[in-house]
Order: sequence, then structure tokens, then C-alpha cells
Amino acid sequence: MELPHLDEGGAARMVDVSTKAASVRTATASGVLRTTEAVIELLTTGTLPKGDALATARIAGIMGAKRTPDLIPLCHPIVLSGVAVELHPERDGVRISATVRTTDRTGVEMEALTAVAVAGLALHDMVKAVDPAAVLDQVRVERKDGGKTGTWTRPE
Amino acid sequence: MELPHLDEGGAARMVDVSTKAASVRTATASGVLRTTEAVIELLTTGTLPKGDALATARIAGIMGAKRTPDLIPLCHPIVLSGVAVELHPERDGVRISATVRTTDRTGVEMEALTAVAVAGLALHDMVKAVDPAAVLDQVRVERKDGGKTGTWTRPE
Amino acid sequence: MELPHLDEGGAARMVDVSTKAASVRTATASGVLRTTEAVIELLTTGTLPKGDALATARIAGIMGAKRTPDLIPLCHPIVLSGVAVELHPERDGVRISATVRTTDRTGVEMEALTAVAVAGLALHDMVKAVDPAAVLDQVRVERKDGGKTGTWTRPE
Amino acid sequence: MELPHLDEGGAARMVDVSTKAASVRTATASGVLRTTEAVIELLTTGTLPKGDALATARIAGIMGAKRTPDLIPLCHPIVLSGVAVELHPERDGVRISATVRTTDRTGVEMEALTAVAVAGLALHDMVKAVDPAAVLDQVRVERKDGGKTGTWTRPE
Amino acid sequence: MELPHLDEGGAARMVDVSTKAASVRTATASGVLRTTEAVIELLTTGTLPKGDALATARIAGIMGAKRTPDLIPLCHPIVLSGVAVELHPERDGVRISATVRTTDRTGVEMEALTAVAVAGLALHDMVKAVDPAAVLDQVRVERKDGGKTGTWTRPE
Amino acid sequence: MELPHLDEGGAARMVDVSTKAASVRTATASGVLRTTEAVIELLTTGTLPKGDALATARIAGIMGAKRTPDLIPLCHPIVLSGVAVELHPERDGVRISATVRTTDRTGVEMEALTAVAVAGLALHDMVKAVDPAAVLDQVRVERKDGGKTGTWTRPE
Repeated sequence: MELPHLDEGGAARMVDVSTKAASVRTATASGVLRTTEAVIELLTTGTLPKGDALATARIAGIMGAKRTPDLIPLCHPIVLSGVAVELHPERDGVRISATVRTTDRTGVEMEALTAVAVAGLALHDMVKAVDPAAVLDQVRVERKDGGKTGTWTRPE
Repeated sequence: MELPHLDEGGAARMVDVSTKAASVRTATASGVLRTTEAVIELLTTGTLPKGDALATARIAGIMGAKRTPDLIPLCHPIVLSGVAVELHPERDGVRISATVRTTDRTGVEMEALTAVAVAGLALHDMVKAVDPAAVLDQVRVERKDGGKTGTWTRPE
Repeated sequence: MELPHLDEGGAARMVDVSTKAASVRTATASGVLRTTEAVIELLTTGTLPKGDALATARIAGIMGAKRTPDLIPLCHPIVLSGVAVELHPERDGVRISATVRTTDRTGVEMEALTAVAVAGLALHDMVKAVDPAAVLDQVRVERKDGGKTGTWTRPE
Repeated sequence: MELPHLDEGGAARMVDVSTKAASVRTATASGVLRTTEAVIELLTTGTLPKGDALATARIAGIMGAKRTPDLIPLCHPIVLSGVAVELHPERDGVRISATVRTTDRTGVEMEALTAVAVAGLALHDMVKAVDPAAVLDQVRVERKDGGKTGTWTRPE
Repeated sequence: MELPHLDEGGAARMVDVSTKAASVRTATASGVLRTTEAVIELLTTGTLPKGDALATARIAGIMGAKRTPDLIPLCHPIVLSGVAVELHPERDGVRISATVRTTDRTGVEMEALTAVAVAGLALHDMVKAVDPAAVLDQVRVERKDGGKTGTWTRPE
Repeated sequence: MELPHLDEGGAARMVDVSTKAASVRTATASGVLRTTEAVIELLTTGTLPKGDALATARIAGIMGAKRTPDLIPLCHPIVLSGVAVELHPERDGVRISATVRTTDRTGVEMEALTAVAVAGLALHDMVKAVDPAAVLDQVRVERKDGGKTGTWTRPE
């Protein structure tokens, strides 16, 4: 077992994917911003958005997916063919889910994870004046499809 | 209680801070990338880095702090006067801590949180080939100092 | 009369503002995205937003203001202390207004204009499938305050 | 008639284009920066550039086309295979035209519009000291070719 | 002989490459940061890195390659399929080499050169407090492969 | 003698400058793009620019200065109060000089060096079709003023 992003001398590199086939690849990641019930009430009327807060986080997540190669040093700059970010307010947190698709030579797990993290940070920013103790938690890949390794789903 | 980032009609805005005083403000955030013991061994020899992996994550975190206003829609573009990112490999995870300082008119909690999240995502990227189930957890503010609201420390 | 952005030989430069005083400066710009009544109905229920379209344009405008020095070659990178973008759906167009404030050494007319233009382009993007003939019009400064030249308001 | 950028619940998304064919697609957009005759004289000797002003705006437009996915929240990050920006000084304004080409899965109207808008804003920046009342007008698509919907030309 | 980036009127443009074939293309560039023996000792223990300095420069170079179309006005935004940056400390300098690969329609000499230059500037930044006279030298293409023009190697 | 960008454990950090005074600081850097006499003729008529090539490089350099904190991992994001880039065509090369000024808490040597390097790379890009062997050479600081360390000029 070894880390492909490090060469035999331990130096970081962007792994060459030029021999991999271009194909449709999809990844879904999720996470949750934990906050208080009172804050959830400020963000929503029941499960409906109240004002721009959820839209702001959704846009931040979609734009964050596009910034992945700028942020993650060894990620490939690739074309993205679709990004969707879902926000589900729950009793004491907002559940975040992002699905990203490409037709390129490498998977998009990092793009999906970055979308979730940036959407979560954007929520954090909006609620921090009223809940400085909010926590972004459980940012993780749920599923990936396509590419040579095929489908992976998170074990329960 | 209300969200200052939304105006009375619910529209998102970047809050005017022009009447706040420029002063030294510091924030520390933390988080953890949970992975397996076997992956921790690939990243380290004991607690020492093995190759560039930890340096890559540290640099990603520092650069991520600088990209905060590009990522978080309602964050102010400000000058930063210092950023430090610490990575502590533990038995089954890497603990991440970031401290950011400014001399500007607004706090730097978001910059510290973004540094932690981006460092964690960069680690995620490097380990995902060997541990697709890794999780970025507990991204949160630990402490902030300076500004009108003064010091806040996370309640235990 | 001469263009301060060009030196005596005609070469472009970022004008030195180091001897100007840091002070509060504000600028308001406006513009309009002209489209059809049918499209306005898709964007709104009366004057209320329907879905994320207006929030998306507002966020794009706010983030666009922050990208001004990346886009406009001779603009100074400065701190911004506040940005607000307003969108007013009218019968056959969406009126856009942006107000930007800084405490720095140079005015923020370009930041306000960029916010308007980017919000307008984001609307254009969302409506182009149903109205490819939409037009972004009348992008202009309405008013500026502060700095040595003081207040300027658009002549009627 | 509906807006494809919003899902059935009204949430913004980057539309999935993975099933569209990669093919050559071209778009041309135009606009005009209206200013005074005196300013046009500062920019040109007749129709010839005087100093770097027109080149600065042209470069800003070309680079702006490349920043489109960073600016427009729901635009796809794609490869561009060519960008040309033309500036035609007229009696009391500078006419701007941009043509963008891709070989990707989605059209490039937004890239052409962004090139025009950014070139126009860059001109605005250079003339604002001598004409604060300048206006960027008529930013619009003139023609698009390629893709499933084929050629569209602006109705006269 | 003419410069393809300028049209017949001398205007800068991003050359249309839509009729070129997508194929694997590689470029290698090199350069050297000249400094003092004492500084080389601070950076290394013999030829081994001491602390994060070399990793920081390597990451800067890899990320710099990805920023090439943002920096170089007439470069095409393309996908990159691999980037490697090597740093070889010598007696009184650090030799830098970068190899970049794409599967796109245009060569990657500029990406390789940018990786070398940015890695060199990052080293410059780290050593400037102890050697303000350091010099980045000999930034040049060593070899390119692929595309219609095929292989070019630097004449000795 | 030690490298301030590395802490006692060798970890990279953005050095805290919050206790340094904000003051006017200036830096000048230079470099040269070496090419052939024939290429110089394509770029100029004598020492006058022919078409947009020199303006393109100048704009690239000015914009590059603004991107310094995005490119150089440990550089502080600061406000810049002025940037000038000069290009002097000589017999077999183009000499590049950049002067950058700030009113912030840290020097601008890296901004001046980055402006020179990016202007040089932009020239490289424009001439590479006719001179693939061009070399960017002697990128170095010439002089800095201001700050606690005061004036430094390059020893002859």
C-alpha cells in the first residue's frame, strides 16, 4: 500500500492520468453543519428557506466545486459537467449533500467533498454571530461511480 | 436574535464594517481527518512526516486561508498578518489546527476554519486511494481574540 | 485632460495612491437586464423571488465586487468593508443596483460597476435558454462619496 | 417554459451536460462603452490606439472570458479553444465585440458576454477620471453556432 | 516569420486551436535559483530537505502550473493530466525542473515554464531575508513532445 | 542565520507581521527575456512596440503582481498602492523592470519579482512559436526602500 501522490522519494506530484480513459464519473459527498435549534429557526420556516441563507450556501458549494484544483494542490484541473448541492435543515443542523459529474480522466470525489465543505463553511459564516460554537462534521464521500475502479459505496 | 448577513428583507449582503476599528484580531480553529492506522503509517514515521504529505496539507491550509473571501460569499477581503497550520498525526487520524491573525476591521474565524478545512481536504485527497472512507470531522472555532466582542473560547 | 492610467509614453500602469489618505469611500452603480415579461414571471411571483435565481445573481454580484482587481488590469487590490446588491424585477427587466464601501486609499466605482455587471451576467446565464436575446444595459455609476474629489452624483 | 438552472424545487444547480456531445461551438457578443468625443480623442488618434488603453481593454476581455466559470455561479468550467476581442472607437463610444470558441459540451455565450463586459469595464476604469458618467450599454449575444440547438442570430 | 498571437492588425488574441487534434503532449522546463552556500545549508542537510522549504516550492510550482491561463493572457485554459516538479540543491543554487502533460489541443510549454518560475519565486521568498541578492536564472524549455510539430529538444 | 518562514520544527508558516508598522514600502525588480534579433524585430519597430505584444506583457506583469499571494504560498495578502512595469527592447532581448509600492506591514519584493517573471513568461508565450529557445534570465531584486530594514540596493 502506498500513496500515489508521492513519488518513490516522497516528493508530492500531480499523478499522470493521460493514459486513463475519458469517461463519465460521478461522486456524491455529504456533511453536516451542527448548530442550535434557534439558529435553524432563523434559517428556515420549517424546512423552507427564509431569506437567502440557504441559497448563499448552495451557490458557495457549487462555486467551491469549481475551485477545487485551485485549493487542493495535487488535484487535476478538469472540466465538470454538472454540480448539485442539497441542503436539508434538520432539528439541530443542516445536512449538506453534493453530487458532481465529469466526463474527464479522473474522479470527482474531491470536487464533491470541496462543495460540501465550502457550503458548510458558508453556513458557518452566516450563523457565527449567533452561534460561534457551530461545527462542520462528517465531511465524507458517500458514493462514486465510473472510471476503472467502478462503483464504491460507503460501508454502513 | 437575527442573522447579520441578511437584511430585513432576507437578502444576503456583505455587512458594512467601515465604522469598526482596525485592530489586531486572532482566531484559532481545529478539525481532524479520520483515517486508518495503516494510512497514518504511510504518512509518518511515528509522528514525523514521511515525504511531502503533511507539508502539502500545511501549504494547502495556509493558501486556503488566503482564498477565504473568494470562497465564502459574504466574507470581507482583508489583509492577513499571519497564518500557522499545525498537523498532529494521531493513532487513527491527523489533528489539524490553524491560527490566523489580522490587523483589519473584522474577525478571522472564517479564515482559520477555511485553513483547517482545506488542509483536511488536501489530506483527504492524498489518502483517498488507500482509504476512500476517510472523514473530515469537528471543523470548529476554538478561540478568538480582539475586536469589540473580545475573547471567546469554546465551552468544554 | 489626460488619462491617469497611462504614463507620458502611453504605457499602462497602476497609479500610485500611496500619498492619498485612507478614508471611507462609497460608490453606487446600477444597470438593467432587459428580458421579456414571460421571463420575469419565471423569475418572480410578482416582485418576490421564485426559487434561487435572484439570490444567485445577488451572490454573483457580491463575489464579483471582490474579484474586481483580478478582472480590471489597473485596479488596486484593496480591502472592502461592505457590499450590497439589490435586484428589482420590473415589467420587462431586472433593475440592478450595487453599493460598495471601503476604508482604503482609492474609490470603489469599479467594484460597484463590476458587481452590477456580474449580477447582470449571472441573470443572463439563467435566462438565456428561454431568452437568448436578453440585453445588459445602462451599467453606470450613480453616485460616489468620499476621497479628495468628494461627492459626485450622476447628472439627470 | 422553465429555467433549466433551477430544479423543480427552485434550487440553483449546474445543469448536467455529460450526455451532450463535445463539438465545436462558437458565440459572438457585443456591447458599447459610451463616453464623450473628447475621451475618444484621448484613447485614439483617429481610429488608431494612442498608448496602451485599447490593448489593456482587449487583454482584460480575453482574460475575462477565461474567468467566466469563476464569476458566473452556474457556468461550467470548460476548455476554450480561441478568444478574440475587437474594439472599434466610434465618435462617442467604443464598440466591443468578442468571439469565443470551444470544443466542449456546452455553449460559450456567457464567455463571449463576459469578455465584452470585462473589456468594457476596463475601458470604464481608464476613462472614469475624465468621464465619470460613461455607460456600458447593449451587452448582448449576436450569434451562436454549434451544439444541438445550432445557429442562432439576433433578430434585427 | 510572424507572431501567431497577434492578428494582421497587431491585436492580441487567443489563437483558435479548435481544429487541432487532442493528443498527449508533454513539456519539460528548467531553471535555477542562485543563492549562497550558506543558504543552501539552511535549506538542506546535504541534498536532503531540512524542514518544509523544498516541499513548499514544489507545491507552489505544481499549483503555479494550474494557474498558467490566469497569468499568461493568451494561454488557453486546458486540462492537465500530470505535473511533476523536481528541486535539486547544488552547491550555490537550487536547480528546478518541471514536466507537465496534457491530452488537450495545445502544448504545455507555458505550464512547465510557469511551474519552474513560481517554484523559483517561492524559494526566493523563503531565502530573501538571508539572501536578498538571490537570482532566478535560465528559465527555459528543455524539451517538448507531441502535437503536430512533434519533439523539440533544446540545442546544446 | 535562519529562515523566518520555517518555525523551529521546520514547518512552513506565514510569518506574523501584526506588530510591524504600516508604512510606505517600495521594491524594484528586473529581469530579461533573451531571444533573437529577428524576434525583437517582430516585436518592435526600433524601440517602439509593433502591435499589442509589449502591452500584453506589461498588463500581464501588473496583474501578476496582484496575484502574488495566490502564487507564493507564504506571502501575505496585502493592498498594493502602485505598480509600474517597463519593457525595454534591446538587440537580442527585452529588459523588464517592475516597481511596486504598498502602504502595508510587509515589503513588496515578491510582488516586484512576480511582476517581472509573469511579464517575462507572457513574452515567452508570444515568441515561443518563432523562438522556442528563448530564456528568462536574471530575475532579481534591484532595490527596496522602507520598512524597518530600510533601503537595500543590489551590490554591483
